[in-house]
Amino acid sequence: MREIRVGLIGFGTVGSGTAEVLRMQATRLRRKTGADIRLVRVADLNLTKLPREHAGVELTRDAEQVLTAPDLDIVVELIGGIEPAKTFILQAIAQGKHVVTANKALISQHGREIFTAAATKNVEVGFEASVGGGIPVIKALKEGLVANRIESIVGIMNGTSNYILNRMTDEGLDFATVLKDAQAHGYAEADPRYDIEGIDAAHKLVILMSIAYGAHVRLDQVSTEGISQIEPIDIEFAREFGYRIKLLAISRNHGDSYEARVHPTMISNQELLANIGGAFNAIRFTGDTVGDVLLYGQGAGKMPTGSAVVSDIVDIARNIINGAVNRVPSLGYRSENLREVEITPLDRLRCPYYFRVTVQNKPGVLAVITGILGKHGISIQSVLQQGRDKQGVVPVMMRVYEAREDAVRAALAKIDALDVCAAPTVKIRMITS
Amino acid sequence: MREIRVGLIGFGTVGSGTAEVLRMQATRLRRKTGADIRLVRVADLNLTKLPREHAGVELTRDAEQVLTAPDLDIVVELIGGIEPAKTFILQAIAQGKHVVTANKALISQHGREIFTAAATKNVEVGFEASVGGGIPVIKALKEGLVANRIESIVGIMNGTSNYILNRMTDEGLDFATVLKDAQAHGYAEADPRYDIEGIDAAHKLVILMSIAYGAHVRLDQVSTEGISQIEPIDIEFAREFGYRIKLLAISRNHGDSYEARVHPTMISNQELLANIGGAFNAIRFTGDTVGDVLLYGQGAGKMPTGSAVVSDIVDIARNIINGAVNRVPSLGYRSENLREVEITPLDRLRCPYYFRVTVQNKPGVLAVITGILGKHGISIQSVLQQGRDKQGVVPVMMRVYEAREDAVRAALAKIDALDVCAAPTVKIRMITS
Repeated sequence: MREIRVGLIGFGTVGSGTAEVLRMQATRLRRKTGADIRLVRVADLNLTKLPREHAGVELTRDAEQVLTAPDLDIVVELIGGIEPAKTFILQAIAQGKHVVTANKALISQHGREIFTAAATKNVEVGFEASVGGGIPVIKALKEGLVANRIESIVGIMNGTSNYILNRMTDEGLDFATVLKDAQAHGYAEADPRYDIEGIDAAHKLVILMSIAYGAHVRLDQVSTEGISQIEPIDIEFAREFGYRIKLLAISRNHGDSYEARVHPTMISNQELLANIGGAFNAIRFTGDTVGDVLLYGQGAGKMPTGSAVVSDIVDIARNIINGAVNRVPSLGYRSENLREVEITPLDRLRCPYYFRVTVQNKPGVLAVITGILGKHGISIQSVLQQGRDKQGVVPVMMRVYEAREDAVRAALAKIDALDVCAAPTVKIRMITS
Repeated sequence: MREIRVGLIGFGTVGSGTAEVLRMQATRLRRKTGADIRLVRVADLNLTKLPREHAGVELTRDAEQVLTAPDLDIVVELIGGIEPAKTFILQAIAQGKHVVTANKALISQHGREIFTAAATKNVEVGFEASVGGGIPVIKALKEGLVANRIESIVGIMNGTSNYILNRMTDEGLDFATVLKDAQAHGYAEADPRYDIEGIDAAHKLVILMSIAYGAHVRLDQVSTEGISQIEPIDIEFAREFGYRIKLLAISRNHGDSYEARVHPTMISNQELLANIGGAFNAIRFTGDTVGDVLLYGQGAGKMPTGSAVVSDIVDIARNIINGAVNRVPSLGYRSENLREVEITPLDRLRCPYYFRVTVQNKPGVLAVITGILGKHGISIQSVLQQGRDKQGVVPVMMRVYEAREDAVRAALAKIDALDVCAAPTVKIRMITS
């Protein structure tokens, strides 16, 4: 029986999950591919022994031994981060090995260099696990929706922030409390910035946009805002008019330019995306021929991510067996047809907004605020002043009709500069479709 | 530039959609595949002229001219039904042509024969469009979830019945009224039986089960019930305890046997599947490594189905170009590894149920009914007797705890045989996960 030999660098959560999936599914994969897909070598700096179920798999502390092993077909990189992951991957490619990775930070920032190197050596780079964990979102976009101009991508691409917002919504807890609890239970990292500041979601959006538009997209082109300023009062206000707050990654295709933004968003609870519970991910593509397609599942975790990594391994194995390496280009489009694209400046965005202004509770304050908004052409749909009779500082919540981001920015700068304004205004964009 | 030449049989809704998608996306597909994927010939019995945008495409009334044309790589069958579609497909295969079809009735009943013929001639048969319209559900299952033992498949696979149930739910209308209106507006066929009796969903379930389990599944192994007996009162009762009624296709993997059933189902409104609006489809797979993955989108329609048909054409084109035909077997598993499987008899199913018993409103009737249920080991969770003070015939709605189907069947047979029973009892199964 044909053997496909796999080496693995990084035996952490996803690495051990991948090894476990390969082991559990070995018979099933043989029945499907007619080949024996075998993990033969693992490199991990912190490991002295592999779990007993992986007896026969060679363990080394030296990644080099995997990268240069002449008997490997595929190297799986699961250490994450930029370096040394990038060097390892480029080395594996230089050695003529196919690569599979779950590394969204790396692919979103150095994908171009990596894919070029791979094309030169005629090897493949699989990265299904870099977006949406176990959800086959990249295959669906690249192959399933091949016959579509992608009009928009809207998704919950970070499970941790979705988990935090859901608990804030369901239990009325504040951000700091839920984050602490999430960290204690392993739902959030000790350093949660990538998740809660929207950076992780931005990585994933860059990858999906590159495939959707056949384009080179840079991480610095994505406008990114996190969820740490959201308070229960915002969630409650949203709920009252039938909305929820989600951290959404959004790209819309305007033909000559593309939106690229990650931020907390108010979305109607009639939308499936508003109803994505727990730490789940969901990504909606709108295509000109297919309309809306949404994919939902676990966006992280040992076994789900392992499922995606192994699906890439199998894909590459099938190409090796059939002599069809690079049957589908890395980003779906042939590399010579990838384009530079223009990103729509956030200032040109038009959408309805929610504002929470924090002011001294004095007569006439609301008139001043609404006056400033009016001067910038921003029309108020509804206002709620909490604790109207209280002295001191109060939050004023308002919904405004569709306005342009630059006008909103200018108006809020003026409002925040008022003597009566006690804290920077929080703004949350709304999505209407 | 390499040319991939496509012939099309059947220029109805999906056929014209497919032609339109190929035309609209021609440049994009060239940028992706490096090949020119061209529709060159169409056969349709009822057409004397193709729309002007398809100038240059040859039209014939004689399918033979497409099937035997020596210059075609792929024949697309979009006439639907068993014959002559089956004969056409087998002829195309015999001529060494690859085949793409959206024909769920045919694939679910004659897939084995067709796939065997294709394997013999080393050509491919693509059928993505046969399940879930534009949703890339077959690719997701066959390739994306390749490293999973599929534990269950639960889905809304028929848009027409979902549309009817949604309008009954949202507007409180009865089945006949909505069906009539749906027919008037083209949401339901003149002969709606396939849709409302669950047969169409059963076709799709057979196809998904075959792929999920690597098995030969027969249509007659699926227990099928439609939605025509559902009344607004059932929907209202469900709503009161947080449930909705959906026509679900369900298969669960018990290791030694598999469930295979299509029927109206009460499902908690906390579930995404309960919240699938309009005529949309949604299919949830549960895998042992990936957990739950749900795919949502338009399950029918000219352009969405065209999107799926063209994705198959592109897949096959890529295999032709790369010399990798049958890179992925028709059902994901290599044909020599497909198995016969046992289907769990519906009688062995255990789930909670809802009953609507229609009885003469006489003292003691409820005691008799609950007595019969009790004797069959069926415990009541709640009962609602509508119009308790009315004379004549009244519906009695009840929810019972988990029970076995054979016990339920026996109990309801006794209840329906009572003199006081005025109409057959309606039972709706509930799904708890």
